[in-house]
Parts: sequence; C-alpha cells; structure tokens
Amino acid sequence: MRYDHLISAKQLSREDIESVLDRAAEVAADPGAFADTHAGTLLGLLFFEPSTRTRMSFDAAMKRLGGDTIDMGSVDSSSVKKGESLADTVRVIEGYADALVLRHPSEGAAKLASEFVDVPVVNAGDGAGQHPTQTLLDLYTIRENAGLDGLRIGIVGDLKYGRTVHSLAHALTNFDAEQHFISPESLRLPRGIRYDLQSSGTTVREHTEIEDALEDLDVLYVTRIQRERFPDENEYRQVAGEYRIDSALLESAAPELTVMHPLPRVDEIAPEIDETARAAYFEQAHNGIPVRMALLDEIL
Amino acid sequence: MRYDHLISAKQLSREDIESVLDRAAEVAADPGAFADTHAGTLLGLLFFEPSTRTRMSFDAAMKRLGGDTIDMGSVDSSSVKKGESLADTVRVIEGYADALVLRHPSEGAAKLASEFVDVPVVNAGDGAGQHPTQTLLDLYTIRENAGLDGLRIGIVGDLKYGRTVHSLAHALTNFDAEQHFISPESLRLPRGIRYDLQSSGTTVREHTEIEDALEDLDVLYVTRIQRERFPDENEYRQVAGEYRIDSALLESAAPELTVMHPLPRVDEIAPEIDETARAAYFEQAHNGIPVRMALLDEIL
Amino acid sequence: MRYDHLISAKQLSREDIESVLDRAAEVAADPGAFADTHAGTLLGLLFFEPSTRTRMSFDAAMKRLGGDTIDMGSVDSSSVKKGESLADTVRVIEGYADALVLRHPSEGAAKLASEFVDVPVVNAGDGAGQHPTQTLLDLYTIRENAGLDGLRIGIVGDLKYGRTVHSLAHALTNFDAEQHFISPESLRLPRGIRYDLQSSGTTVREHTEIEDALEDLDVLYVTRIQRERFPDENEYRQVAGEYRIDSALLESAAPELTVMHPLPRVDEIAPEIDETARAAYFEQAHNGIPVRMALLDEIL
Repeated sequence: MRYDHLISAKQLSREDIESVLDRAAEVAADPGAFADTHAGTLLGLLFFEPSTRTRMSFDAAMKRLGGDTIDMGSVDSSSVKKGESLADTVRVIEGYADALVLRHPSEGAAKLASEFVDVPVVNAGDGAGQHPTQTLLDLYTIRENAGLDGLRIGIVGDLKYGRTVHSLAHALTNFDAEQHFISPESLRLPRGIRYDLQSSGTTVREHTEIEDALEDLDVLYVTRIQRERFPDENEYRQVAGEYRIDSALLESAAPELTVMHPLPRVDEIAPEIDETARAAYFEQAHNGIPVRMALLDEIL
Repeated sequence: MRYDHLISAKQLSREDIESVLDRAAEVAADPGAFADTHAGTLLGLLFFEPSTRTRMSFDAAMKRLGGDTIDMGSVDSSSVKKGESLADTVRVIEGYADALVLRHPSEGAAKLASEFVDVPVVNAGDGAGQHPTQTLLDLYTIRENAGLDGLRIGIVGDLKYGRTVHSLAHALTNFDAEQHFISPESLRLPRGIRYDLQSSGTTVREHTEIEDALEDLDVLYVTRIQRERFPDENEYRQVAGEYRIDSALLESAAPELTVMHPLPRVDEIAPEIDETARAAYFEQAHNGIPVRMALLDEIL
Repeated sequence: MRYDHLISAKQLSREDIESVLDRAAEVAADPGAFADTHAGTLLGLLFFEPSTRTRMSFDAAMKRLGGDTIDMGSVDSSSVKKGESLADTVRVIEGYADALVLRHPSEGAAKLASEFVDVPVVNAGDGAGQHPTQTLLDLYTIRENAGLDGLRIGIVGDLKYGRTVHSLAHALTNFDAEQHFISPESLRLPRGIRYDLQSSGTTVREHTEIEDALEDLDVLYVTRIQRERFPDENEYRQVAGEYRIDSALLESAAPELTVMHPLPRVDEIAPEIDETARAAYFEQAHNGIPVRMALLDEIL
C-alpha cells in the first residue's frame, strides 16, 4: 500500500495507477477468486450529494469482495441537518467502519476528512475538485480498448467545470498521450490546467469543432454540457446540438475509435451508437466494479 | 428455468405457478436449507416509487438465500433526476448486480428494461400494469388456506384500478375457481378483463353488496378504495363505509372463510378481525419471503 | 435473556446493565470472536425519524456479528404515507426480520409495537420518551473512564426535554452516584424526575453555573441546548455562551475529568477540547458498536 487515503488522481504515480489497473484486470478475469477476500470488512458510504452509479458501484464492489457496507443515507435523513460539522461526522463513523467513501459538494472535503480519521478515506467526488476512482476506471477502459501509451484522445463538452475531465487529463500526463480538447469558447479548458499539461510535456490541442480532431483519434471522451451553464436557452440548444455524437458525425472517424462517457448522458450521444462496437460507455460504467474492488483491496 | 424475466402474471402457466408455490412451500418448511444457496449473488433493487413491504421483502428474501442486495435508493437521490433514461439506468446497473427488481410508475417499464439487459428482471409493479410476485404470494396464501381448485373467491373494493386484483383474477383462470367481484358501480372490473376471464371458462359474478356473495365464499380478498378516486368526500365515505369488513358483516360467512388483503389497509378491515382465525393478511405479507425466495432461486 | 424487548432503561436492573456492559467489554477486547456468531440473522431497522449514528451503529453492530439488516428507509418512501398504522407496519415487518429496532417520534411507540409482535423490539428513541441503548453506551463509557460506583457526574444543558439525560439519570440510581444538574432556570430537570432520583437515595444537586460544581466532578456530561427552546434569539445566545465548554473553563476541573456528549454537538464544546485526554465523546459514540453488539447478542 503506497497511500493511506485516495483523495486526488494527482497523488497517483504511473506505478500506482498501473498497480490498480493490473489488479483490476485480475479481478475482471476471475472475480470469484476475490469473493471472500475481505469478509468481515465494513465500508462506510457517506454521500452528501445524490449519486447512483458511484454509490452503487462502491456498494457492489465491497460486497463482491465478501465485505459489507453501512450507508449514511441522504443528508435529509442525517445529523448533518442538525448542524454537525463534517469533521465530527467522520470521526463518529470511523468508529463503525473500516474505511470511508465520501462524496461532498465542497472541494477539499475528502482531504479535510482524511485529516481527522485513522481509517482510509476514498474521495468519491468533492464538488469541482477530484473524483479519482472515476479517473481510474476511465484509464482502465482506455487501456482495455486503445492502450494508454501513444494514445490520441479527444475530450469533448464542458471542459471548464467538469472535474472528471480535469482529473483524467492530469492522470494521462503519466502516459505518452496526445490530448485534444473540444468545446465551445465559453467552456474551454481552464488556462492553468492547460499549462500544467504542457509543462509535463503533453501535446495539447484545442478545437471548437469535433470534425477538426476526429479522424486522428483513438478515443472520443464525451461529457455532458449542462443547461445551467448558459444564460440563454437558445444558446444552450445550439451548442448541445453541435456537440452531439451520432453515426453521421462518426463517419470520418477511424474504424477503431472508442466512444466513452462518464454517464449519465442526456442527449450527447445518439442511441444509434449504443449498439455499435465503438460504444464503450456502459462497459466503462461496469468497469467501476473491478477497479473499485482492486482499489479497496489495495487500501484495506 | 422456464423464463428469463418475470414481467407479468400472464406469462405464467399453471405449471410455472405450481413450481414456484411448491418451492415456496419447501422454503417455508425448512428455510435453513436455503440459507446459503446463493452466497455471492447480488440483487439490484430499483424502486422508482416508494415501497415498504415489496422492497423489504425482496431484500430479506435475497439475504435469507445467503446473497446480498444493492439499492438504488429513492429517485430523489439518483441520476434519474439528471434526466437519465430508464434504458441507460438499467444498462449501467446490470453491470453491478446478478438480477434486477424494478418498480416503476409507468406501465410497461419492466418489459422495456428487460429488453435492454442480459440479467433477469423481476417486475415489482409497473404503474397500472402488473405485480406478478404479489400474485404469486396471493396464490400461495390461498392454496395454504383454502386450496386453489374449486375455490370460490370474492374480490372487494377498487376493481377498476387495482393492478393486484387484475393480476390475481387472471392467474386464477389457471385453476378451477369461481370469481365474485364486489364493488360500487363506479369501480367495477373493466369490461375487457371480465371478458378475458369468461373466455377462459371462469365463472364470473358481479355484485354491489358484499352480503349478496358472502355466504358462498372460501376467500374474501379485500382491497383499498382510494379517496382520490372520488370527486366528492361524502361519496367516498359512504362507499368506504359500505365495504368495511367487521365482525357483524362476517356473521353470515362460512366458518372457514379466509380474509385477505394486499396491505397497507387503512379502514377496510376492522381491527377486531385481526385476532380471528379468518385473518390471513399478515400471514399473506409474510408469505412474500418464501415465495420471493423460491422465485429468486428459480431465476438465479 | 432476562427480557424479550428493550423498551426503557427503567426496565434494567443493575444486574441487567452489568451483564450487557460485561459482554460489551468482551466484544471490545476481541471483536473477531463475535464475527460470525449471528450469521443468517436479519435485523429490521425502522426509523420513523432521521438518525445517523444510532441507525448506522445498529447496522454496523448487526453486521459485525455476521448478520445482516433490512432497512425500512425514510418515512417518505414507505407505506406509512398511505396511512398505515404502526401496529400494521410492525406486524408485517416482523415476518421479514428476526428482531426490530424502532425509532419513532411518538412517546410509547416502541412499547406499543412490542405488544403486537413476537420478535424482540429494541427502542431506539421514542419522542420525548426513552433511548435505552444510548444509556447503555453512556454507562459503558463512564465505567471505562471513571467507574460507576462512587461516581460524581455533572449533567449540563437542556435537562428539561433531553430524553438522553432522563434515561441516564435514572439508570445511574442503580449505582452509588452523586448527580449534579447544571442548566438555566428555564431548562431545569423536571421536578418529577428529581423526586424519583431522590427517592432512590441518590444525592442530587442543582446548579445554574458550571463552575459551582465543576471541581468535584469525575464526568461532565454535556448536552445540546436547542435554539427552538427559546422564544428569543438573544436569550438563546447568552445561554449557549454560558454553557460552552472550553479550556479556560476546564482549568478548575480535576485533571482526570472526562467530558462526554451524546452528539451531534453544535457549539457546546470547543474543538480545542477534542484532542485532550478529557474528551471521551467520540469514544462514547464508538462504544455504540460493542454495546449494541452485546445487546443484540443477548436478545437474539
């Protein structure tokens, strides 16, 4: 175990990442071999924001390892409403569980929590901050479909606010990847992140049209553009329309292009893509299980 | 296993029904013998509408078989709020669980879900549609208390909207049962269903007064009449009062008459009936466990 | 097993209490020895009011014993909304679980529930009534830190409405303890309770200033003063300020004074106390696990 807590994808070296992904591959190849490896272990699930896939996949991952979970439930049904601080909440629950998974609307929440408890803390999303297990399952999916070294990836959508995008882009600097960022002007990758990527020696390209980058890509990573980002409904619709992925658009892509999406999607990818060999987004969600099993196995 | 998914009571032949009920009887006779038969199995609970008894009894049934569950939680705390389609939700969660139990406000939801996933789907209620495991536990309870062949059953209450009633009535056509339907005019059994029943050779009688059918019945199946069905509060009260089951009313019934109710009840059955030998409604709810254990055992 | 249900701390004799605390100490010393003692047991969690620590700690306790739980979920997602009576709800769920843990806003709810079911019922808080497992973990914490016989305890805060305080005060009459009650005039211990304590031979002292009692105390048990109790915001602030525990205040306390709090706290104890040897409130919360494991082990 190289780390006590998993707070940010930034803390992971190439070696750390490969260690989790290799373990995840072992799990995926033979899940039964891990079925009772953590019997008696309790994982505390603390989701201060709604979540389906992340919460359920940690829940399933722990149970697939033979352990069990205890769930704080929604904030509405918890002591948080009585004004308890996050530090107090986690210091109580660390006495009930062997590790904690935390999602919280405030950036830095998982880091703060980790400073108050002795059990491992896994960040499952802290506001605009980090969501490192999403990054690990993204990397796993990329590695399975296209390979990480020499990768040419296009990341589309809301590049300004998307924590998923920021974590993934940063993690990919550990590999020899060429990164294309495709977004409307108003949702461009923050300058500081672009600078970080370039400083690490990564090739970074920015585009406003998907077509300008598409034919050279191995992976197209699509993210949701949120209506709330646009003051004007019409402007939103125009942008959403331009960045919609459908069969017509993908005609100019390489035959082996892989399409990914962290889900949930609304309209960003046409359903006609779902049944094609390009679609990896459900597989990507499913990879949450072996990747989180591997991670829990490492830190527990 | 004769079916991959359980969507509707209509898909069950007499043989299918008897297979589940026989298995349920084995479970009830010796639950311990099934205690570890499905260790390592994960059941996904997806309840898009509130539910206590159905959700908890599937949860308990899976755990009594040695397996475990993962629960989507309420819709308010899930990705559904972000606009995700049902098809996407179930395609994600099928990667986490070995089977799915689905309740949804829209008729046809379970059928739709079953077309998108490879794991078994059990319909736990789809709007005005079907709720087949309720029907199976009803049949089990009838079989234990009165027998199915030669049965004379009276079904009372809201016969127009009650999905429980429709499924049960249909399932009973597999047996030689005489069906009496007792309701106010405005809540009569839909004509199409009456026609279906008669076409199958079932004897169907309709009444507006319980007394007109009562003395010939083996089972009285009571359902709730919902206030919302009546434009006028006074009209509701009058109807609710007429169909209330109490000791005085049951004086003219056969001594071995069994009273059932899918629960929750509000005022339809007087508490004085609870302690009598006629009351089978709590037993009926409890039968959800062996019946759902038997069903899960069949489809997993 | 001396009792079928645990409804009130009042039903527990000194012998009963010591039996649970001794068992809890065994559990705390070697939790692994209890890890599979209740495999196959299902505990039903029925929380009609929000709860984090009590619900999660029962959940964890049952799972640490090798069993599992089924959770009714929040009232909003249950049949209760359809107007079902508590008696009906518990009579249904007793068919799913081997014991029930109940929290309910109405005083007397757990007692009522216990009269309708055959499985053991544990009261996890009934309105202004009782919360006996909180009392047991309080007693356990006191015994570990200061000993119960010859104890000098000061109980601070809302002594009028706090069910935790009332249960603890009563339970301590089984031991040779001197009880100091410290509160603003408007939140004094109810006269009836003071009378009960004195009748049992307990030495009872009342104070309005913490300083008047502090130097003689072994344990200072702090409770939250709720804003809602005061018609006037200013009055609340003044009182809350006066009863705030910080390092300056504790200078005149005995070196081995233990500070307890049932949590959640808001501002009653300054964070600077958390890291001192006096602070026992997180340990107190954690003691919920061995104490509830011991209790479940006794009644199951």
